[in-house]
Amino acid sequence: MPATAAPATFSSLRPAPAGRAVEILDQTRLPFAKAWIPLAHRDDAAHAIAAMQTRGAPLIGAVAAFGLALAMAEDASDANLAASTALLAATRPTAVNLAWALARLEALLRPLPPAARAEAAWVEAWAIAHEDAAQCAAIGTHGAARLLAEISGIDASSGNPIGTGTLAQAGSAATATAAPRPLNIMTHCNAGWLATVDHGTALAPIYRLHADGVPVHVWVSETRPRNQGLLTAWELAERDVPHTVIADNAAGLLMMQGRVDAVIVGADRIAANGDVANKVGTYLKALAARAHGVPFFVAAPVSTLDFACPAGSAIPIEERAGDELRQVPGRDDADRPATVRQLPAERPVANPAFDVTPAALVTALITERGVCPASGAGLAALYPERAGALPR
Amino acid sequence: MPATAAPATFSSLRPAPAGRAVEILDQTRLPFAKAWIPLAHRDDAAHAIAAMQTRGAPLIGAVAAFGLALAMAEDASDANLAASTALLAATRPTAVNLAWALARLEALLRPLPPAARAEAAWVEAWAIAHEDAAQCAAIGTHGAARLLAEISGIDASSGNPIGTGTLAQAGSAATATAAPRPLNIMTHCNAGWLATVDHGTALAPIYRLHADGVPVHVWVSETRPRNQGLLTAWELAERDVPHTVIADNAAGLLMMQGRVDAVIVGADRIAANGDVANKVGTYLKALAARAHGVPFFVAAPVSTLDFACPAGSAIPIEERAGDELRQVPGRDDADRPATVRQLPAERPVANPAFDVTPAALVTALITERGVCPASGAGLAALYPERAGALPR
Repeated sequence: MPATAAPATFSSLRPAPAGRAVEILDQTRLPFAKAWIPLAHRDDAAHAIAAMQTRGAPLIGAVAAFGLALAMAEDASDANLAASTALLAATRPTAVNLAWALARLEALLRPLPPAARAEAAWVEAWAIAHEDAAQCAAIGTHGAARLLAEISGIDASSGNPIGTGTLAQAGSAATATAAPRPLNIMTHCNAGWLATVDHGTALAPIYRLHADGVPVHVWVSETRPRNQGLLTAWELAERDVPHTVIADNAAGLLMMQGRVDAVIVGADRIAANGDVANKVGTYLKALAARAHGVPFFVAAPVSTLDFACPAGSAIPIEERAGDELRQVPGRDDADRPATVRQLPAERPVANPAFDVTPAALVTALITERGVCPASGAGLAALYPERAGALPR
Repeated sequence: MPATAAPATFSSLRPAPAGRAVEILDQTRLPFAKAWIPLAHRDDAAHAIAAMQTRGAPLIGAVAAFGLALAMAEDASDANLAASTALLAATRPTAVNLAWALARLEALLRPLPPAARAEAAWVEAWAIAHEDAAQCAAIGTHGAARLLAEISGIDASSGNPIGTGTLAQAGSAATATAAPRPLNIMTHCNAGWLATVDHGTALAPIYRLHADGVPVHVWVSETRPRNQGLLTAWELAERDVPHTVIADNAAGLLMMQGRVDAVIVGADRIAANGDVANKVGTYLKALAARAHGVPFFVAAPVSTLDFACPAGSAIPIEERAGDELRQVPGRDDADRPATVRQLPAERPVANPAFDVTPAALVTALITERGVCPASGAGLAALYPERAGALPR
């Protein structure tokens, strides 16, 4: 079955060595250890998502799809289809990709006789994974062109292709009056190849620029409390992209100092009006970017777009365990895994995992289809077939 | 010598049991252990400031003054006066209180014969400590009145005193249409009694409201990378003030959700035009407060005002060691002190310790003399004798 042969470039998810199963990179052990976890049963997938062994809005959509395929291999009844869809959907509430992938599989499987469901689910889960990688690659192409255009004043529609050296030279020319310097791009959380099946969303344009020879440097915010910025630093280092880790708190100062040319982040859900739910702290960066005229981009595939959600205020914000703030994982002096408690267990803690950035603060959305204003009209222009679904 | 008898209410600094020395609460061991460090030599004081065993703009001014007094006890020569002043001034660059205290002592000591300097320095260092505690108490009174006025619409100039119950009742009445709820006040870093000789700057009004029976609840931001918010949580818990710890990243969401009535922070330096340098991340909170119409107050004593500094852009921003981001201290499973490394040593890190909040984002400054607009005119009205020093 050709669909099970994942391309070698898949970075966060791969077929298991034997049987109908997949393996995921255990993100709770990064950046210190690179370990793969087999997902052979539905509950393996559900646990991996809830415990954030796998994470990133596009990737958890794909993993949920494999979870449902694994459920069908064990019990393809209508009852288990409904129960497993519900169980997987409840693992995390904010990222819409999860619900999107499950709805896509359920719509495919429901009309089929149970005997045909396991095979169909398996093929469709791999289709979702392949599509995600392809969409992220497209986001990289569109985003790289837009970053260069925004920063250097080049018309993105001029037809100059990325990768020929033409735009790379023009990008450098934008700073030609001073010594050549890299484009300084700030990101938040992790929206790279670890958060998707491959390439990433926010980081895809950065990888594309880097591959095309455009000097880039990435400001990586730590992203407390789960420190996904450390994953971003790790994956950028794996691909030799220059970067610097900062405390989340430093974002405003760096923009005030003129050391940030653009901000680009991923998203967990984009409402029909262009409001963006993403990792908590994104909104503070968007406010600072606006205050300093720094362009603020959100990169996401179609599975992140929620045309049924009218505005950001309707997006549920996940509240996670307070121990994510109280305890910090890392390595001890002997380089063994260790955790320190930095707050007593009785200390009251609030831990919302996401926030909402109003569309008005977003310079543009970057999707697999191109770049558009963060608005209902902008999304409708890129997705005319989906905009028809409104209102719901 | 009466000046050496510190009041029992001094919380962060106290006379040593014997001899001309002081003890400071070791803030690097809080919130897990409450330990005192003796400062018996100049270099003890210099190390305590640089290593952040003691911290907080007002407090490090007082500790630097004791450091110079200790230096004079060992060698009261002109050469040592100059050298010790320079050495202590170099321990930290951003908080102006340090330079202010040293300049005050040096101006006093320079004209004196060396034999008289040790005694005079000792008396003056205690005078600085006593003044700081008294100024912070006054900030508490002015700030409490202003917080209630701002939040409940009460005219702060109506003459109703804090503490009689009148304003406390009126404060509650402001939310009388809903169930009674506390005033929700957000702070950043630690600007309480741990950061001053006593009472605090930003937290002084909160302690005053709490003492007056006004229900308050404090959102305590973690304040990466040094996590001074954990100190704030600890000192609030010590005085039974309700609070909740949050990741710095959550500040924007909480304001968007209407869960913050006011923000109040301390300062490390306030320029003559009202720009405020404070712990990195303050600026992001100020931007979010402005976006949501939440009043943003800065509380500081006169020693934090730098009339010689025209604007925030002239304030030096301390860059601290990258290991503050790479390593996180806490307690292990056996409740022993432990540190985990969360980033490899080779990972590039930037660690600016402060940022600048433009005066335009500050609702008002709260000093020991009262409340004023964050502007040159506002400061000149409160400090007419100092404003004459401009321009310099």
